Amino acid sequence: MQKWGYDFTFDCTGVTKVMRDALEVAHRGWGESCVIGVAASGHEISTRPFQLVTGRVWKGTAFGGWKSRTEVPKLVQQVMRKELEIDEYVTHEIKGIEKVNESIDALHSGECLRAVVHISDYKFQGDKLTFSQPTNNKVSGGYLKRITHWSETNQCDMTFSIFMPAQSKRCEEPPAVLFYLSGLTCSDENARTKAAIYEHASKYNLAVVFPDTSPRGEEVAKLSDSWEIGQGAGFYVNATTDKWKKHFNMHDYVTKELPQVVDSLFTVNIQKKALCGHSMGGHGAVSLHLRNPGLFQSVSAFAPLLNPTNGTLGQQQLEAYLGSVEAGKAYDSTELVKSYKGPMIPILIDIGTHDEFLPNLKPEAFKAAAGEAGYPVNLRMQPGYDHSYYFISTFIRDHVDYHATNLGLARRC
Amino acid sequence: MQKWGYDFTFDCTGVTKVMRDALEVAHRGWGESCVIGVAASGHEISTRPFQLVTGRVWKGTAFGGWKSRTEVPKLVQQVMRKELEIDEYVTHEIKGIEKVNESIDALHSGECLRAVVHISDYKFQGDKLTFSQPTNNKVSGGYLKRITHWSETNQCDMTFSIFMPAQSKRCEEPPAVLFYLSGLTCSDENARTKAAIYEHASKYNLAVVFPDTSPRGEEVAKLSDSWEIGQGAGFYVNATTDKWKKHFNMHDYVTKELPQVVDSLFTVNIQKKALCGHSMGGHGAVSLHLRNPGLFQSVSAFAPLLNPTNGTLGQQQLEAYLGSVEAGKAYDSTELVKSYKGPMIPILIDIGTHDEFLPNLKPEAFKAAAGEAGYPVNLRMQPGYDHSYYFISTFIRDHVDYHATNLGLARRC
Repeated sequence: MQKWGYDFTFDCTGVTKVMRDALEVAHRGWGESCVIGVAASGHEISTRPFQLVTGRVWKGTAFGGWKSRTEVPKLVQQVMRKELEIDEYVTHEIKGIEKVNESIDALHSGECLRAVVHISDYKFQGDKLTFSQPTNNKVSGGYLKRITHWSETNQCDMTFSIFMPAQSKRCEEPPAVLFYLSGLTCSDENARTKAAIYEHASKYNLAVVFPDTSPRGEEVAKLSDSWEIGQGAGFYVNATTDKWKKHFNMHDYVTKELPQVVDSLFTVNIQKKALCGHSMGGHGAVSLHLRNPGLFQSVSAFAPLLNPTNGTLGQQQLEAYLGSVEAGKAYDSTELVKSYKGPMIPILIDIGTHDEFLPNLKPEAFKAAAGEAGYPVNLRMQPGYDHSYYFISTFIRDHVDYHATNLGLARRC
Repeated sequence: MQKWGYDFTFDCTGVTKVMRDALEVAHRGWGESCVIGVAASGHEISTRPFQLVTGRVWKGTAFGGWKSRTEVPKLVQQVMRKELEIDEYVTHEIKGIEKVNESIDALHSGECLRAVVHISDYKFQGDKLTFSQPTNNKVSGGYLKRITHWSETNQCDMTFSIFMPAQSKRCEEPPAVLFYLSGLTCSDENARTKAAIYEHASKYNLAVVFPDTSPRGEEVAKLSDSWEIGQGAGFYVNATTDKWKKHFNMHDYVTKELPQVVDSLFTVNIQKKALCGHSMGGHGAVSLHLRNPGLFQSVSAFAPLLNPTNGTLGQQQLEAYLGSVEAGKAYDSTELVKSYKGPMIPILIDIGTHDEFLPNLKPEAFKAAAGEAGYPVNLRMQPGYDHSYYFISTFIRDHVDYHATNLGLARRC
C-alpha cells in the first residue's frame, strides 16, 4: 500500500459497504477498484462523486470480463488449441449429472478451485471435418500450428502449418491470410522453418498458411518412386489421368478446400487472401491467380517456373498428371496471361541472378507475354542471389509489405 | 545525350585535347567526366574553371579506382571467396613466362579482353592452415559461407559457417564478430538456417560465426554410439580423459583457434567479440565467458544449461570428458560465477516458460549464485515459449541489439 492508498483493490464479499470501502482506499489519481462479489438483491453501492473525480476508477467483472456469447467461444477455441492452460485450476472432476451436488459441496469445502461435472462421454466430431494439431509453437508473440485434416478433394489426410499473429487488442479485425506455396520436394516444413516471415507478418496482423506440396500417405507413396513425380510434386493442378486423379487435385485443394478449412478452424478474415510461392510454388501462385481472377487480392512469387510447358522442369509432371504437355498449357502462366480477363493486380516476382534453376524459370517468356497482354509485372532480378531460402528470407519483408498494401492492411504499432 | 550534355563521359584516348572535350560535353550541374587514357609524358590538361564551377566533375581511374596496396588484396580475397566473378573477362590463358609476348600480341589483336600468364603451377598453401568453402549463399546483402579447415586443437577437420555483412561504404570499419554456440545434437546448420539473424546483424555491421558443436569424422564417430556423447555433444570443455582428450577440446577451439582462423580468412575486427549460445551452447557461452574474463565483451544465452553438474543433462558428458562430475565444476556456470574476477558484463538470458528442458536449465540456482557474487544477470522468463528456434528467432533481435550496445556498434542507416 502506498501512503495514499492501493493501486488495485478487489471486493469479493458481495457486501455493498465493503465495495464502497474498497473504492475509497484505492489510490487517488489512478487507483482502480473492481467488484467481483454478488450483492444481495436490491442492495446498491454509493459513494461521493469526489472519489471518482479525484481519479479513482470503479469497475466490475464477471467471466473475467469476457462477453459470454461472442467471446467465451473464442476462449474455448484458445483452450482447444492449447494456447490457454486451465487444467491446473480444475481440482475436482465429477462423473454424471446426478452427482452435481458433489461439486457444490466441493466448492463449499474450501478445497476446490473449480469442479468439472462430466455429463456424458460425448466427444464433438464435425460433420466431415476431422483434424489434429501435432505441433504448436509460440513465435513472434503468435502461434505456429501444424494441422492434419481429412481432405475430401485429395481423398487423404493433408497437413498444413499456420501462423496466427497475436491479437493486439480485443476488438481488432481478424487477420487477413497469406497462402505460401512451396517448391518441388518441399512440405509445409521448409518455409515455416526458414522463411523468417513471422515478425514482419505480425506487424500487419497477417496470418500465414503453409500448405503441403502434394497429397501423401501409404497409398500415394505407391504411385511413384521418383522425387520428381508424386509426393512433394503436386504442381498445383487437378490431375485428369486415371493413375493420379483420385488424389492429385492440389489446384482445388488450395483454392477451395483449404481456405474453408482454415476459416472453420481459425478466426481469420478469409475474404482477404494473398498468394505467394517459391519455384514450383511460384508457378502455383501465379497460375492459380490467373485461373481464378479475383480470388486472391495479391500475388507474388520467388523464382517461379513461369512457362513449365516450355521448360525442362515441369513437362514430365504435367504430362503425367494431365495426359499431355499440351494439356498443361491450362496451368502454364505464360499461356494463361495471354487470355486473362479480370482484375490486373501487378505481380511481384523476385529471381536471383545466380539461381541454379534460372534456365527453367523463363521469366523473359512470361514478361513478354504479359507485356503483350498489358498485364503489369514487377520482375526484379536480384544480383548474386540463388534459389535457396537465404534468398527468400532476404526479400520476404518486401513481399509482406506488398501484400499488406494490396490487402489494405495498416501497420500495427 | 541530354540537350545540355552527357551525364557521364569517359576518355580512353590519352589525348589531352580529347580529355578536355570530354569534360566540356558533360552536363552542366551534374555531369561527370572520367580520365582513363594515359597521356604522353609532359602533356597537361586544362579547362576554364567555369566548367567546374557550373557543376561538372573531373575525375580519373586506374585499377578501377582501388588503392593497390591496401585494397587490391581485398579484391583478390573477394575473388577467392567467389563473391566477384572474373573468369568471363579472361579470354586468353598462356602457360609459361617465356611466352609472355603472346599476351601482348593477343591484346593488340583486338580479340582479347584479358590474358592471364601462368608463370608456374604453384598453388598457395598456408603454413598449417588449409581450408575449403563448400557453400556460399548471398543473404541480406552479405554472404553466408561454410568453411572447413584443419584444426590443430581438435586434431581433425572442423566446419563452421560465417555470415559476413555487406560493406556499406569503402572506408567502413571491419565488422565485429558474434560467435553463436549451438546445442546438443546440432551442427553449424541449425542456427544458420533458423535463427533469422542476418537482417538485424547487418544493421550493426556484425559478422556472425556458427561453430560446429564438436569434432566429427570417421575416427571421432568410432568413440561413441550415443547421441548424448561424442559427435554433436562437445560441451565446450577441454577433455582430460584418455579416450576423449585428443579430439574434444572445444573450449580452446572456440576461445583460441577459431577466432584466429576467422581473423586470418576474413576482414573482421576480431578485437570486438560477442558470445551467444543455445541450450548446451548457452552453457558454453556463459561458462566460456566466466572462465575467460574480458575475452568477449558481450555475453547472452537462450535456454542455457546453467548448472550442468547439478542437472540430469550434462553430468554424463562432463564425467566422460573430465573423469568426474566434480571435475565438471570447472566448467559449471553456477560454480564459476561464485569466484569470478573480471569485468562484470551483465549477462542477458532468455528462457521460455514452456521449455520442455526447463528442469535441466537451473536458472534459479545460477541467479542465486550470481546474486551472492554481485554479478548482474538479466534473466527473462518468456511466457509460452518453448526450446525451439521459433523461440530463438523471436528474441534474436533483442540479443543482437544487446551485443551491439556492449560492443559499441552504431546502427547503420
